[in-house]
Amino acid sequence: MAAEMAEQPGRLAALLGRADQIAAQVRGLVPVPLAACVLVARGSSDHAATIGRYLLEMATGRPVASASPSVHTLYRARADFSGCLVVAVSQSGRTPEIVTMVERARDSGGRTLALTSDPVAPLAVAADETVLLGTGEERAVPATKTVTAQVAAFALVAQALGDVGFDPGTRARLPDLVAGVLADEGPAADVAEWLAGSSRLATAARGLLLGAAGEAALKVEECTAIFAAGLSAADLRHGPIATTTSMLPVLAFAHPGPACGDVLDLVAELRARGAPTRIAGPVEGSALPWPADIPESAAAVLAVVRGQQVALALARRLGRDPDRPLGLHKITAT
Amino acid sequence: MAAEMAEQPGRLAALLGRADQIAAQVRGLVPVPLAACVLVARGSSDHAATIGRYLLEMATGRPVASASPSVHTLYRARADFSGCLVVAVSQSGRTPEIVTMVERARDSGGRTLALTSDPVAPLAVAADETVLLGTGEERAVPATKTVTAQVAAFALVAQALGDVGFDPGTRARLPDLVAGVLADEGPAADVAEWLAGSSRLATAARGLLLGAAGEAALKVEECTAIFAAGLSAADLRHGPIATTTSMLPVLAFAHPGPACGDVLDLVAELRARGAPTRIAGPVEGSALPWPADIPESAAAVLAVVRGQQVALALARRLGRDPDRPLGLHKITAT
Repeated sequence: MAAEMAEQPGRLAALLGRADQIAAQVRGLVPVPLAACVLVARGSSDHAATIGRYLLEMATGRPVASASPSVHTLYRARADFSGCLVVAVSQSGRTPEIVTMVERARDSGGRTLALTSDPVAPLAVAADETVLLGTGEERAVPATKTVTAQVAAFALVAQALGDVGFDPGTRARLPDLVAGVLADEGPAADVAEWLAGSSRLATAARGLLLGAAGEAALKVEECTAIFAAGLSAADLRHGPIATTTSMLPVLAFAHPGPACGDVLDLVAELRARGAPTRIAGPVEGSALPWPADIPESAAAVLAVVRGQQVALALARRLGRDPDRPLGLHKITAT
Repeated sequence: MAAEMAEQPGRLAALLGRADQIAAQVRGLVPVPLAACVLVARGSSDHAATIGRYLLEMATGRPVASASPSVHTLYRARADFSGCLVVAVSQSGRTPEIVTMVERARDSGGRTLALTSDPVAPLAVAADETVLLGTGEERAVPATKTVTAQVAAFALVAQALGDVGFDPGTRARLPDLVAGVLADEGPAADVAEWLAGSSRLATAARGLLLGAAGEAALKVEECTAIFAAGLSAADLRHGPIATTTSMLPVLAFAHPGPACGDVLDLVAELRARGAPTRIAGPVEGSALPWPADIPESAAAVLAVVRGQQVALALARRLGRDPDRPLGLHKITAT
């Protein structure tokens, strides 16, 4: 896992270098008019897709749905994806329900795009177009380099359809910024020390960083068996905040921008209740900083890397092997 | 909370009696062709909307998106909801971000439908059409009767657009079936006893009952401050299952039908790992049964009621006041 995390700056640089080619692919594929976007993913890829959902909604103004594969794979409901851009994300490209879902979408009029690593995987074969993530083989069960590649790929796809701040200057800087975060391991070790005695963790964010919060929670679960959930700051106030009265630790993600104030308000509220709380992001009092002077679409990648670091540091602190979590497999058949 | 739960059979009977009128409202509102459905909700209403998402996707074959209000309320992104049916769900009809979201959707071409209880609430004023839930005032902080009304309303809206099994015969039976579940309190007390020593709970389901599992988790959080999360059986296998090695209790929801086998497979897998697991639904070995001989669209209502019962019984077992959870308010401003 640590070795694959370290590959991220190089892998991202290679992917981002194909930005123009990917933009042309996307523009040639997207239906006009666009009825809706539909994202198909599970697990870590689904957290990348949550970031993609916000980016595509901002870029196109159109609804972006997270697919419910069981509607098609189990219930076999009628499908009509005409006018839709369907983006399927899978590290392996071999999760059967995702392949089936893409086939049904394509056969009912959808334009389908696969974000995957293997050009001969069933998913790449099923989809109209494929953006290869170029991440090489990923061997650790907790996905890392494929997730940041997926987030970057979503940002490229969105930027091809509307401005989400993922401009050439930002793309050129991103690999070095990721390398900078990776080199700065102390903050994650401190957060791991803070979490070491807990059996539970809530992560929280809003907007573009929500997927990063969810992915951080999943990485912690995979690496440590701590029960973790990623929550929207807004949803957290609708009920789950009651659980913070029972000493539930909360790690909140924020980047300067439209959603930042809401997350910082939540943090203040949590602290007033006595909930143990830490902040990730370039804001005052942050436990896990990254540079502030980049668009949030790029900061989402840095936030994902910070979550990876916390999970890895926590696994080490607890004496667990992050590469071989208990009872997990690299490809999940559902 | 207990008193409001007891109102459910009567409230549902009144709502279901307006099925034809609601169907006419929906058919007059829905755009033709339909680009996509968009659902806007938070908290308990969002769990009802998760059930609605599956129902509407099955009824229409079109993508159904769960709105990300922050895209519009915080990021103020460009919005284009032309061709979309936008369904907003709010008990109070007063959550500001939901009202803003509906206004933006309506002003950019969407056809908007409010599911709410108050005909003069801002949400009802903002939407093109309103389906009144007829639940009267809800005073307990944990929403109960409004949630089952929302689920039933979604089933009526979906049935107006395509067959989801919510036919007149099923509708006629549902209130009595709810009354039967409410009268059968023993199973929930047993499940509460099983959970009484835990600080954590995962609920799981797939397909139509996924929203019921999420709502059960939220009710338990609100009533007891136990940290709970509702997970898709498919997502649970993608990582979170690692946490079941640490004695995380799992309550799985299943109803005979297309998704049942997958959930029962998950239960078998969890038990093989030694995870403490209980099943809700009319299947062998169930801890929380309900009648098997109804379509899953109606069973979703019974599953929600079973979750309410568990949360209430657990609050009583733990000596907590379910009507006044620590630090929660009835209307949440985000």
